[in-house]
Amino acid sequence: MPDLTYLDNNATTRPAPEAVEAMLPYLGEWYGNPSSVHRFGQRARQAIDEARGRIAALVGSAESELLFTAGGTESINTALRGLLALRAPRQRIITTTVEHSATRELCRQLAREGATITELPVDSAGALDLDQLRAALGTGDDVALATIMWANNETGVLFPVADIAAICKAARVPFHCDGTQAVGKVPVDVKAAGIDAMSFAAHKFHGAKGAGALYLRRGLRARPLIIGGPQEQGRRGGTENVAGIVAMGRAAELAAAALPQMSRVAAQRDRLEREILARIDDARVNGRTDQRLPNTTNIGFSRLEAEAILILLSERGVCASAGAACSSGSLEPSHVLKAMNVDARLAHGAIRFSLSRYTTEAEIDRTLEVLPAIIARLREVLPVGTQ
Amino acid sequence: MPDLTYLDNNATTRPAPEAVEAMLPYLGEWYGNPSSVHRFGQRARQAIDEARGRIAALVGSAESELLFTAGGTESINTALRGLLALRAPRQRIITTTVEHSATRELCRQLAREGATITELPVDSAGALDLDQLRAALGTGDDVALATIMWANNETGVLFPVADIAAICKAARVPFHCDGTQAVGKVPVDVKAAGIDAMSFAAHKFHGAKGAGALYLRRGLRARPLIIGGPQEQGRRGGTENVAGIVAMGRAAELAAAALPQMSRVAAQRDRLEREILARIDDARVNGRTDQRLPNTTNIGFSRLEAEAILILLSERGVCASAGAACSSGSLEPSHVLKAMNVDARLAHGAIRFSLSRYTTEAEIDRTLEVLPAIIARLREVLPVGTQ
Repeated sequence: MPDLTYLDNNATTRPAPEAVEAMLPYLGEWYGNPSSVHRFGQRARQAIDEARGRIAALVGSAESELLFTAGGTESINTALRGLLALRAPRQRIITTTVEHSATRELCRQLAREGATITELPVDSAGALDLDQLRAALGTGDDVALATIMWANNETGVLFPVADIAAICKAARVPFHCDGTQAVGKVPVDVKAAGIDAMSFAAHKFHGAKGAGALYLRRGLRARPLIIGGPQEQGRRGGTENVAGIVAMGRAAELAAAALPQMSRVAAQRDRLEREILARIDDARVNGRTDQRLPNTTNIGFSRLEAEAILILLSERGVCASAGAACSSGSLEPSHVLKAMNVDARLAHGAIRFSLSRYTTEAEIDRTLEVLPAIIARLREVLPVGTQ
Repeated sequence: MPDLTYLDNNATTRPAPEAVEAMLPYLGEWYGNPSSVHRFGQRARQAIDEARGRIAALVGSAESELLFTAGGTESINTALRGLLALRAPRQRIITTTVEHSATRELCRQLAREGATITELPVDSAGALDLDQLRAALGTGDDVALATIMWANNETGVLFPVADIAAICKAARVPFHCDGTQAVGKVPVDVKAAGIDAMSFAAHKFHGAKGAGALYLRRGLRARPLIIGGPQEQGRRGGTENVAGIVAMGRAAELAAAALPQMSRVAAQRDRLEREILARIDDARVNGRTDQRLPNTTNIGFSRLEAEAILILLSERGVCASAGAACSSGSLEPSHVLKAMNVDARLAHGAIRFSLSRYTTEAEIDRTLEVLPAIIARLREVLPVGTQ
């Protein structure tokens, strides 16, 4: 795709060529099973151990506190179900109204199974009120766990996870953090933040799809979600995705080294955002911009449907998203923007542009070249019911 | 590993070069998220759909009846927990004493959560008595499901899955089959066999680790194990491992075309087995040989520990296994051989040799060259307590 402008990095990122190169030997001559006794299998075991060290370094955990999964959603399911099972009879879960569908849909299911879900609201900037968290926790006696994201996938808004962790700790409630969008984009240190558990996925920071991890603080027990062989110290059965894990390790190493580059990414994002607002009427940024991922902007174009904008952008080679990729295809307005009480005229036409360290100035230029005409054309021909 | 002799294909197989080649574009330029609206993401969606068609053709299912997972263990967990949840108040599970640890350990956990497990025994040849299955099912009224493997991972013994399916159907009990070791090695047709659900994994038939599938017969409902976005029609949340799925699809296509080659593999296996028995005293094949995978032989060497044999084989570049790779590292004798009442003197020294279509005559020669001396040496220096 030589002419592709890819501004959908919160959906997935381009695997780093170095990460792909690192995984290839484990799809080729070193294809052994890490559980095998023979040296050939032990080579794969060693590769997993090395990757674990690199990922631990990226997020500030001990190696033994990380278990590999198939991705963020599996990690979240493992954490929530796993903690809940061992915290009985407590069955209340504290979360927010703006979580990713992995958390949101899972909580709905857990509610059907008997859990009580307390959803903390956000304000119009997408911010939490920590007093409401304190109030929701109460004595903490009936609370199984809190699960709150680090960075919002749609708006990029960052939550104050260290403060959240301290408040949860005071109430003796385990805090699981969905770190999927934060890891690799902002400095993440689970120890410094005081987080008890954190989920994240390789493909959000230039690893491959199909690999993720769950950090579980030493001493925090969780029932395994996937039970089988003794892999991952009995915490997740199934033959390890060695190549995917190796790629994740290499991607973690690259992401740690590239964190300083995120200020350049932020500058690109800021230019894109500034120019869009300057060139297009009735456009507004959704979510606070002072506490935000460096790579994300969510912009509402009034009186339009995002779907139409995305399709025309796609025809011109520009990839962006309407909120979460996971809910695309639906015409429902984003639950995140609804929770922020964003005016429906802006919420329906909200587009997420998400950059990465691979984003070029030319891609920003290209987007700025095609977007104003697309918006103008759509506003001319496609006035929607919400106008 | 140019000098490697790899006879551990039931642990994992070499990814087919064609399968790796097929996945590379999805780790490179076509890295889009299949859930994205834009055409770039839709290309990944299309690749998944094509792979699903190829895998459906290999196992005889409809495409819509297959959902992708991260591997066999996740598929088994999804099937067992998913069916059990929707079959309440029935909570009895019928299984066998020789299942893979994925099924075995999961059943133990489900028992702790309130399920009742009925384990059918096998005879000394590793065979089931179908009358015992009928008796265990009874009227079927209290049975949530039956889960029985197609082919044993340690001995290669095949169970009569079509007969099992018919008996379960008569009792109106859903039959989940662990097809992990059968798919790609023997003809598998879930419709013809009358199976309700089947788990399998790509890396057992020359796909990559980290991809698997679960067949669920149309109309058979199961609660999802991993809940999140609407991927896989809401039956398994999480961004799809596109590259792994594409590799699985290509591997399925290759496996279907290569099934006739399995008679050549069986001939190699037979030569290996025959020559071992001819050259080494006090060795015996475990499990019936008339209903067996074409690629597997399990041979007990009396008065020895398998671990020692494996280490010396490994030093000479020969990879084999003591039963399941997943339980290696432990010195417990195999639960499969125990269930078959294999004499402890033979069970402790049981080695599994498992071939693939990539196995060469030179690898068989090499194994026959080094094994007799290893056994002789160990019997000389390492008489174990069980002698």
